[in-house]
Amino acid sequence: MPPALSLSSRSLRTADSPISYFIQKAIETPGLISLAAGLVDESAFPSAEIAQVVAEMMANPATAKAALQYGSTQGLPALRARVLDRVCTADGVKPSDINLTLGDVVLTTGSQQMLYLLGEVLIEPGDIVLAEAPSYFVYHDCLKSHGAKVIGVPMDDGGMCLKSLEKELIRLELAGELKKVKLIYTVDYFQNPTGLTLARDRRPKLVELAKRFSKHHRILILEDAAYRELRYDGDDITSIKRFDTTNEYVIYTTTFSKPCSPGLKTGYSLLPNDLVAPVCNLKGNHDFGSSNLAQHILNRLLETGAFDRHLVRLREVYRSKRDAMLTAIATEFASCPGVRWNVPAGGLYVWMTFPSGTPTGKGSPLVEAAVSEGVLYIPGNLGHVPNEQGKVPDHEIRLSFGVAEPSEIAEGVRRLRRAYAELETSKRGARESVLT
Amino acid sequence: MPPALSLSSRSLRTADSPISYFIQKAIETPGLISLAAGLVDESAFPSAEIAQVVAEMMANPATAKAALQYGSTQGLPALRARVLDRVCTADGVKPSDINLTLGDVVLTTGSQQMLYLLGEVLIEPGDIVLAEAPSYFVYHDCLKSHGAKVIGVPMDDGGMCLKSLEKELIRLELAGELKKVKLIYTVDYFQNPTGLTLARDRRPKLVELAKRFSKHHRILILEDAAYRELRYDGDDITSIKRFDTTNEYVIYTTTFSKPCSPGLKTGYSLLPNDLVAPVCNLKGNHDFGSSNLAQHILNRLLETGAFDRHLVRLREVYRSKRDAMLTAIATEFASCPGVRWNVPAGGLYVWMTFPSGTPTGKGSPLVEAAVSEGVLYIPGNLGHVPNEQGKVPDHEIRLSFGVAEPSEIAEGVRRLRRAYAELETSKRGARESVLT
Repeated sequence: MPPALSLSSRSLRTADSPISYFIQKAIETPGLISLAAGLVDESAFPSAEIAQVVAEMMANPATAKAALQYGSTQGLPALRARVLDRVCTADGVKPSDINLTLGDVVLTTGSQQMLYLLGEVLIEPGDIVLAEAPSYFVYHDCLKSHGAKVIGVPMDDGGMCLKSLEKELIRLELAGELKKVKLIYTVDYFQNPTGLTLARDRRPKLVELAKRFSKHHRILILEDAAYRELRYDGDDITSIKRFDTTNEYVIYTTTFSKPCSPGLKTGYSLLPNDLVAPVCNLKGNHDFGSSNLAQHILNRLLETGAFDRHLVRLREVYRSKRDAMLTAIATEFASCPGVRWNVPAGGLYVWMTFPSGTPTGKGSPLVEAAVSEGVLYIPGNLGHVPNEQGKVPDHEIRLSFGVAEPSEIAEGVRRLRRAYAELETSKRGARESVLT
Repeated sequence: MPPALSLSSRSLRTADSPISYFIQKAIETPGLISLAAGLVDESAFPSAEIAQVVAEMMANPATAKAALQYGSTQGLPALRARVLDRVCTADGVKPSDINLTLGDVVLTTGSQQMLYLLGEVLIEPGDIVLAEAPSYFVYHDCLKSHGAKVIGVPMDDGGMCLKSLEKELIRLELAGELKKVKLIYTVDYFQNPTGLTLARDRRPKLVELAKRFSKHHRILILEDAAYRELRYDGDDITSIKRFDTTNEYVIYTTTFSKPCSPGLKTGYSLLPNDLVAPVCNLKGNHDFGSSNLAQHILNRLLETGAFDRHLVRLREVYRSKRDAMLTAIATEFASCPGVRWNVPAGGLYVWMTFPSGTPTGKGSPLVEAAVSEGVLYIPGNLGHVPNEQGKVPDHEIRLSFGVAEPSEIAEGVRRLRRAYAELETSKRGARESVLT
């Protein structure tokens, strides 16, 4: 045996992702329908459009050189200009209306890299991040690796409850812990995992709350708008960023992975200006710039309109998949007392709640029955932060309609129903044997 | 004014890159010939080959889906297999001879990301990294941001002096600081910035030294082989990794940026097996995988042989550029007493040493004269770590022949000679005015 490795405290705080178990299950089990992974639809990738823009770029020596040479840490200016325009157009403002310029836009290796960098730039071990309960569990892992404590804020149909958030901030202030609060994290469009969207009227109020409690330092809002462009019903809702008219309190981050292709692994963010240098200095150390070729491809896809044409098609694909899932769930679970589910207007996820006393996590009878029926889901407990007793709600699940075909989705839901029926039967059996 | 941002201690340790000043100069000064940037030759990019492999991949639904979907954190298995084979073939071994498997290979966003991740995984603030003096200054910034102290080890024509390294390790042990030593960092082929290569006979000895001083924990060797494939004279030299037959002490990292295209921003590393999980767990938090499309492109370039055919052409291009630079330097500086330069057998850099008392850094008369003559170099002091008096050698420069055309290279060197001549004249003037 060689002498042991001596790992940093950060490394020791960093565990394998809790979903590795589920990925492994998916790999090991032939015929399994995965409603677990947040992967995206494969039939709808804009492969012909990508082939075309690459062929055009490579055929012209000037554009080929630009795409194949190093880029900059902050990212391709032309693409930064396009995404700034894109977000502001969606919000019905000019960049100058909300104090934004090209210098406030940063491109990253997916939006995940920005989530990581922000934690790295802002979090000291022991600091606090407030997040929806449940929230995007992959980011919880990041925050844990930075040494942050995540406090969950309850949600209702309008997303994060601002009354609860306010109460929590007051509690923290009274406990002398407001100094530790660095971020309020929200996935505010068709949230992962619940599919819920932060209500329109809560958005300016959230900015006001952050301002009001920025007593020791600025408390920033991290608006993770990854799913914003995947809307299937109704009109787009103004971003939280729109209400941060001085560009001081809100970081808006999103990705091309969901509306276009994860293989390009490119995200973009609008940052308060004084946060750009700290973030880019660290990103310079990480990689001095994400894949420049991917940025050039995306720039051309946006420029030619191929991106938006693709998005129209993609929304159709996902709308019908969502409908397939909701129809199947309604058909299969309508008569199950205490089983409820959200009806998302966009995104990739349906959130189901089973009666309490129906654990859904790793090793639970439901997950075991589901896998043996041939369907995989993500347990809801992964998205929750344990309370002071180490407990989390354990009777929820996340279903994704992103990657499976509509027919598979329906079959997957039927398998889930059979798995749940086995539980009901065995519960009833247990009850009856107690009674007799 | 809004309340101040509250930044992490890591962020506060992370400064803008010292080369930003030189990049800015290059942008601001029209007609400037940059012999500064480590950018790569643009005329030699394999753009036709990339267009072709992308067209083929996108035309086949199965390969298009694979390239445009999420990949894995550790990277595309097919590409990992190819690079493992590539390194082992170069070293004349089978992977199993040196205890390597596919599971020990990790793909990253350039090799820079691996350099960063290793610091993150291993370094606690106050820890020590031993590195060549001078060394790759961008990595110094990374290490500083992790809170590491870099100690420089002198070099001679055979690269890092192992006698000096041993002396330093003994000194640290006597001072009770061996516990802090985590890494020995070496750019062992055509080093950035000196162009020097670690001598063949020092390689197994370096592994032995790391083993011998791994008394508290494993001291790892980080072998940065970024330039290995850019050899213009002589035969390839066995890697240090080759002598780590149990795969425990040496991390081998390199990149496709230098031998192919920085726009693809893909690097690869061979890691001691017990380091793979800590590194990948953190990388999962960073981005859960680098650009998958870039990995698929590189995999196909290697598979079809396009990569190796490109590399043959690229070496020709760089060889003639290096020769243009060396010829120009010999012509211009042969009669300058005390001016010396290295003759690199590969890589992108020529290292020049001026007589002491000729400062070359930011704001020095030489750099100012050079910019007004229209040429830019990288000052040598950036590659050095200040000694206890805060001093670094200040009379060296790095010239890169990577990006400029051969005729520009020759003209750039002539401009540098004129800048140096102005200094000599003003010095002589000063001496004469003292004498009279």
